[in-house]
Amino acid sequence: MSAVTYEHIKTCAQSGARLGIVHTPHGSFETPAFMPVGTLGTVKTMSPEDLESMGAGIILGNTYHLWLRPGTDIISEAGGLHKFMNWKHPILTDSGGFQVFSLSNLRDIQEEGVHFRNHLSGEKLFLSPEKAMEIQNILGSDIMMAFDECPPYPATYEYMKASVERTSRWAERCLTAHSRPAEQGLFGIVQGGEFEDLRIQSAKDLTSLDFPGYAIGGLSVGEPKDVMNRVLEWTTPLLPADKPRYLMGVGSPDSLIDGAVRGIDMFDCVLPTRIARNGTCMTSAGRLVVRNAAYKSDFRPIDENCDCYTCRNYSRAYIRHLVKCDETFGFRLTTYHNLYFLLKLMRQVREAIREDRLLDFRESFFEAYGFNQPDAKNF
Amino acid sequence: MSAVTYEHIKTCAQSGARLGIVHTPHGSFETPAFMPVGTLGTVKTMSPEDLESMGAGIILGNTYHLWLRPGTDIISEAGGLHKFMNWKHPILTDSGGFQVFSLSNLRDIQEEGVHFRNHLSGEKLFLSPEKAMEIQNILGSDIMMAFDECPPYPATYEYMKASVERTSRWAERCLTAHSRPAEQGLFGIVQGGEFEDLRIQSAKDLTSLDFPGYAIGGLSVGEPKDVMNRVLEWTTPLLPADKPRYLMGVGSPDSLIDGAVRGIDMFDCVLPTRIARNGTCMTSAGRLVVRNAAYKSDFRPIDENCDCYTCRNYSRAYIRHLVKCDETFGFRLTTYHNLYFLLKLMRQVREAIREDRLLDFRESFFEAYGFNQPDAKNF
Ligand SMILES: [Zn+2]
Ligand SMILES: [Zn+2]
Repeated sequence: MSAVTYEHIKTCAQSGARLGIVHTPHGSFETPAFMPVGTLGTVKTMSPEDLESMGAGIILGNTYHLWLRPGTDIISEAGGLHKFMNWKHPILTDSGGFQVFSLSNLRDIQEEGVHFRNHLSGEKLFLSPEKAMEIQNILGSDIMMAFDECPPYPATYEYMKASVERTSRWAERCLTAHSRPAEQGLFGIVQGGEFEDLRIQSAKDLTSLDFPGYAIGGLSVGEPKDVMNRVLEWTTPLLPADKPRYLMGVGSPDSLIDGAVRGIDMFDCVLPTRIARNGTCMTSAGRLVVRNAAYKSDFRPIDENCDCYTCRNYSRAYIRHLVKCDETFGFRLTTYHNLYFLLKLMRQVREAIREDRLLDFRESFFEAYGFNQPDAKNF
Repeated sequence: MSAVTYEHIKTCAQSGARLGIVHTPHGSFETPAFMPVGTLGTVKTMSPEDLESMGAGIILGNTYHLWLRPGTDIISEAGGLHKFMNWKHPILTDSGGFQVFSLSNLRDIQEEGVHFRNHLSGEKLFLSPEKAMEIQNILGSDIMMAFDECPPYPATYEYMKASVERTSRWAERCLTAHSRPAEQGLFGIVQGGEFEDLRIQSAKDLTSLDFPGYAIGGLSVGEPKDVMNRVLEWTTPLLPADKPRYLMGVGSPDSLIDGAVRGIDMFDCVLPTRIARNGTCMTSAGRLVVRNAAYKSDFRPIDENCDCYTCRNYSRAYIRHLVKCDETFGFRLTTYHNLYFLLKLMRQVREAIREDRLLDFRESFFEAYGFNQPDAKNF
């Protein structure tokens, strides 16, 4: 039996979205789920207890960043990433590929793997399917990701076709190199950009390898939202119904709902934590930039419909003061709220699926948030 | 009856140190006590719940900083500093004098008050006994401090004499200007530098005004530790036994014990929080700079004799990794530990007073910490 399994609970009669549970060696979480990102072995400004109290069922760690700092030797000595960072619940690690392609401008892609330079020190490094598996086996994540190429957007058909084929060959090498399949589940990643036949080819290649879960990569890289939705509509039907489906790098509230509607079970994104550190909050009435002078003497909570720790105890005026003074506690408060907001949104999505009304929920949420406005912001 | 009162429990037969309780409108705390500093309405990186869980009985706010940011209008609208920052326990505010003298290099001291420039914007400002009372009355702190001059160290006898006399006249004006004596207790501040007769004069002037508590100012400004101890030996016997005594700006472990031995009840200092943000920790075996390479693969807690949240859950290796990566959570962990360490030290001091063995405790603590070494560091 695989280390990671998907239990399907029900399909929303109105939208086709899936309600389920993903089981892992460190416990289970309900889907659709949003995964907070803990790049360097910490979800920025949060403690593990903060994450537990807001209902985070799984978090993400970045293989590339942890490989560089503190390094696999130290995490190995610590007994794995869970112990190192004191997180007792599931962890998903990416393959490092995305960072190699986005952070390093000196890279050389070969069939064997990718030669590139450490974005901090300039040191020469090499990442391959085998190396990505070795690192993730040491990290001990519950869900590992196959090493793939993330082509830039837009890319030519020819480039994308060659890339997809290489990613499929790399996926096979990942399966072979993965040394702990009983303890860690390895997901394959479907690529193919905005080309339907390449998505079909990629999905066919990967599902033939029988991974315990599948991700859809190469989206949320700058393409319009309708392109992303169309790609999901082509791709998710090609993935087995008894395995979890993970849409990588997506965290805007509208895309979480639209992804769930298209059969996605898992999402991750740095968006809620990154904008929080700039004093920007997601609220039930839309985006709120608490740094703005308008909130100077506003003693209401960030979101009047939110019952999170931040909103129960602190005013916009106080948080604005802290953010303006660059006080860490301000960023703790905005980060807590934003993560809570998305985790609560996913709870609402699951409830709506259970009650066969996800499209109704989508409509009222979009209206309240402002996504139906002609000039709607991206998040 | 005064807003702030001192209840004496017992005097240590071995050392003469005092065990007591200070009662305030927002609750009571045992003394000798250490007060964490929350400069801008937040103890840097900590939540109010963190402070409660480590046993902080009272925290400090800085009048000067809060006056500038967010400003008294906003704190007034919020209903005072307690509500603004969500802290339900006692707060002490300083008078702003120390910052005016230490942060502003363009200042003009007159009998009326001090003209100076805002250290952030350069804007011209004026602080006087009356203004310092007005601001602190708005902040609503449980313990307010009189507006005093903090002369530089060293200062000439003539300068110090004139300064002490002005500080006494200012203290009288503070008492007159304080508009909420039933809700907030105003402490006088004894100055006089290292001159015994000026300390005597200052103590005499101030005690004749019958404040509900007294601070000893102008120490820990660069003078050797034996000078500080000698000044305390002259000064505390001049202060009434039925009022709390507060030694301002002192937070190194040895000085907390040596202050208690000389009859001090309250201390505050940014030291534990400031050094924590540099990755430096106080431990039962002395100073530990967790940033050092020596701790790269050290999976022991910061302090093997500490039972704080940080030490129960995280290793030196993990904290070093976070600190090196400038991750906020690392500074949360070191700050929590350092504050816990000093609050626990004060609990140990109180226990030793109760059992008439504070000098024995001092000896064993100094030995373990390394304060008995010839090259002992300051903290
Ligand atoms: Zn909230
Ligand atoms: Zn500790």
